[in-house]
Amino acid sequence: MRIARFSIDGNVAFGAVEGEGPDGLVLDIIKGIPYTDFELSGTKVPLSKVRLLPPVLPNKVVAIGRNYAEHARELGNEVPEVPITFFKPTTSVIGPGDAIQYPSFSDELHHEAELAVVIGRMCREVPRERVKDVVFGYTCANDVTARDVQKREKQWARAKGFDTSCPLGPWVETDLDPADVTIQCTVNGEQRQLGRTSDMIRSIEDLVVHITEAMTLLPGDVILTGTPAGVGPLNVGDEVAVTIEGIGTLTNKVIKRG
Amino acid sequence: MRIARFSIDGNVAFGAVEGEGPDGLVLDIIKGIPYTDFELSGTKVPLSKVRLLPPVLPNKVVAIGRNYAEHARELGNEVPEVPITFFKPTTSVIGPGDAIQYPSFSDELHHEAELAVVIGRMCREVPRERVKDVVFGYTCANDVTARDVQKREKQWARAKGFDTSCPLGPWVETDLDPADVTIQCTVNGEQRQLGRTSDMIRSIEDLVVHITEAMTLLPGDVILTGTPAGVGPLNVGDEVAVTIEGIGTLTNKVIKRG
Repeated sequence: MRIARFSIDGNVAFGAVEGEGPDGLVLDIIKGIPYTDFELSGTKVPLSKVRLLPPVLPNKVVAIGRNYAEHARELGNEVPEVPITFFKPTTSVIGPGDAIQYPSFSDELHHEAELAVVIGRMCREVPRERVKDVVFGYTCANDVTARDVQKREKQWARAKGFDTSCPLGPWVETDLDPADVTIQCTVNGEQRQLGRTSDMIRSIEDLVVHITEAMTLLPGDVILTGTPAGVGPLNVGDEVAVTIEGIGTLTNKVIKRG
Repeated sequence: MRIARFSIDGNVAFGAVEGEGPDGLVLDIIKGIPYTDFELSGTKVPLSKVRLLPPVLPNKVVAIGRNYAEHARELGNEVPEVPITFFKPTTSVIGPGDAIQYPSFSDELHHEAELAVVIGRMCREVPRERVKDVVFGYTCANDVTARDVQKREKQWARAKGFDTSCPLGPWVETDLDPADVTIQCTVNGEQRQLGRTSDMIRSIEDLVVHITEAMTLLPGDVILTGTPAGVGPLNVGDEVAVTIEGIGTLTNKVIKRG
């Protein structure tokens, strides 16, 4: 099932995405909260009539650096011996169609297309065989990075945590098998990144075990699983799209921060 | 004014701390939320009858590394050219008297006593002269660190973000002048750290400008301003206390994670 969060006439709701094709998609409005038991109301609205919002409200976004060997190499980095883990704050999260605001303190903004894991249950010290039980679903993410700032600053809170640096969407797919799907990034329709999740150095199971060894994850928390090779610049006016096979496409435009 | 958050008979409230001495302190229960207009109810409860909770509910905790030159030197680090900024997640926050759980993946837990700035207003790109307007008050913090993990892992999400790694309290002091107060840390009553906020490399004004250049801060967000020299090990059974002149003492016991 594909679960979107949206606003219509000022009301915010979750809905299940049904139908096919850009014109045929409708949202069946969900009664209750998707992370617990919920029902479909049967009330349907066309997707074209709503504004999609970030599909999750994370308490935290835990992100992984250099989880694809080719991407580590393209920036001149070694594959890390232990996963690189960092946070993106909730204030960085935006939804599909929202603008990425080019920050004033950077001259080198980069796109990083990533598969995002959405957590469904409060969990800590998750054993490998239970990881599937704590995952709610998957969405597309763009780990937008101020590359120049990342190079200058030892920890990445500003380089990867500025406002609008974490587009998520367009919805959460709960039925995906994430083991081997394509991740693509285009800028103004031109392909920049193309990878397969099967090339991840650490699997989703590895990452959930590694993260929850240290910290509790809450329903709606998000794990960004690293970006494949092909990262590159974003400029004001660009339209950047992250497409993951079996999920959909997350599109955002880059504007100057006003 | 000193504003505490507490529970009594299962109810959670904010209260203004009044009176003197450990036995004379009472809480005047606050009507409403401290970050907006609020009134004191006049209903008073003795501090000894309540359980103090973390005095703030941060959306994020932004922390600063190596902001005291002597501390940078004691770990063999240079003073950074730009402030080191990282996040501690909300799941790491505990209150006064709560247990620091020694994590299973570390053998070298360290205390780091720090002055915590509590933000009172939603803000971004704060000019230096407006910093005082966005600060709500100050509390004590312990930036508990798995030093061995910090050395092994390039980004510090696990080393400084594990559950219980961010004790805050005992209350927020809204009237402090933080320019030159002592910060002290004791372990089992023995002094380990003693510094003065006047030795910070970057002032609170510098830090708020630097952080909000990148990201929005929300009411209740917390900035940890770095630790003075004297960091050292914590062991299971230890009682660690952070005392800041003009605020009070934050005490936590270290237990084995159960």
